[in-house]
Amino acid sequence: MAKTAGIVLIGNEILSGKIADANAAYLCRELRALGVEVRRISIIPDEVDLIAAEVREQSAAHDVVFTSGGVGPTHDDVTMEGVARAVGTRVIRHPSLVALLERYYQGPLNEARLRLAEVPEGAELVADGSLMFPAVTVRNVYILPGVPEIFRQKFDALRERFRETPFHLISVFVNIGEGTLADHLNTLVARHPDLLLGSYPEFSNPEYKVKVTFESKDRTLVERAVEELLTALPPGALVRVQR
Amino acid sequence: MAKTAGIVLIGNEILSGKIADANAAYLCRELRALGVEVRRISIIPDEVDLIAAEVREQSAAHDVVFTSGGVGPTHDDVTMEGVARAVGTRVIRHPSLVALLERYYQGPLNEARLRLAEVPEGAELVADGSLMFPAVTVRNVYILPGVPEIFRQKFDALRERFRETPFHLISVFVNIGEGTLADHLNTLVARHPDLLLGSYPEFSNPEYKVKVTFESKDRTLVERAVEELLTALPPGALVRVQR
Repeated sequence: MAKTAGIVLIGNEILSGKIADANAAYLCRELRALGVEVRRISIIPDEVDLIAAEVREQSAAHDVVFTSGGVGPTHDDVTMEGVARAVGTRVIRHPSLVALLERYYQGPLNEARLRLAEVPEGAELVADGSLMFPAVTVRNVYILPGVPEIFRQKFDALRERFRETPFHLISVFVNIGEGTLADHLNTLVARHPDLLLGSYPEFSNPEYKVKVTFESKDRTLVERAVEELLTALPPGALVRVQR
Repeated sequence: MAKTAGIVLIGNEILSGKIADANAAYLCRELRALGVEVRRISIIPDEVDLIAAEVREQSAAHDVVFTSGGVGPTHDDVTMEGVARAVGTRVIRHPSLVALLERYYQGPLNEARLRLAEVPEGAELVADGSLMFPAVTVRNVYILPGVPEIFRQKFDALRERFRETPFHLISVFVNIGEGTLADHLNTLVARHPDLLLGSYPEFSNPEYKVKVTFESKDRTLVERAVEELLTALPPGALVRVQR
């Protein structure tokens, strides 16, 4: 049961603008659909101390933490070491992973390939029929690779572990600006402190000026708040409602 | 002079998977081209306490910090308040911004529109001919809006403030895997501790297996390290060099 989640992306290639990450946006969408609230995404360099500090902090703050990137055989793959330090343990070579790699490479492994068998001590390997190579988890931290296809494969194999009560979302599109809309939204927020109410202006969209999102795990609350806004809007202000 | 930068994206809409951010990737590319090293990107909710804590920490850790999002007239726009707390001050209404908004809206402002004139006390307004509405900065924090077009307009007006010695980047593409390549890379890292050396495998690219990036502000160092790798590679392993 994971109500809140954090995401740690590890990669100089993102920070230096060489690649745009796709894993965080994917994971945010998937977790939201499962009913899990992502509370933080941090993108940090391939440096053991920074990884250890960030994972330690997020692991304490959230029910579950996902890391992406920094797993592999080269010098800049230091996520396993960082996570091990974060949870107060050390990196070991996992015998099942060594065996798996020996079968895969059909023979003895060099030092670089043996690094692929390294995990934090106490880590659990999560495999199902769909994965060639298991996912690695320790405490509440799931260590996923940066390569998007493999990231998704591994998350898909794990996803049912995280299913929660779903969120209900209704979007209301209006053709009045935020400056006019704000009073109505403030009234809604004051009346329904538990409602997640978002207001997203568009400056060059011919269809509407603001998208207002109503979201909660309580469907009745969402429906009631939408109804209240629709009643309060001036005539002609509503463009459409999307459920 | 900004050698290091941090980025704080503020927005429930990103964390809940409703939109994929484009500002961080843009800013990483632009800052890198200017010679500035981005050390951290944090994506956090529209919550004053979290914004204050994150901006305070990043402002202390980096030469310059950019925020994106959470500026506007509605209840969920709390970045100004968060940044004000981060730098130990309060939010005030800036007289120049009130005057600018009165001209723009051609008359007196309601409470919601007056919020657009709020900035942390002591903030500087940075305007140039290209901006309809100035950018806001306090200490080493630049407060930018989340809407991508306006984010880019404002950053473009500010960019020359951040120009540094540029990075030199050479990419070497090889058709041997990381497991074989790792020894060569370890040798390079040991010999040139100041070199930024990245290794990025591709699993389904017919052209190459690994892209190796060599980067430094010292062009000679980059050229020398590339030469060393090219000499060490087995015959036929090189696909191409990109400068």
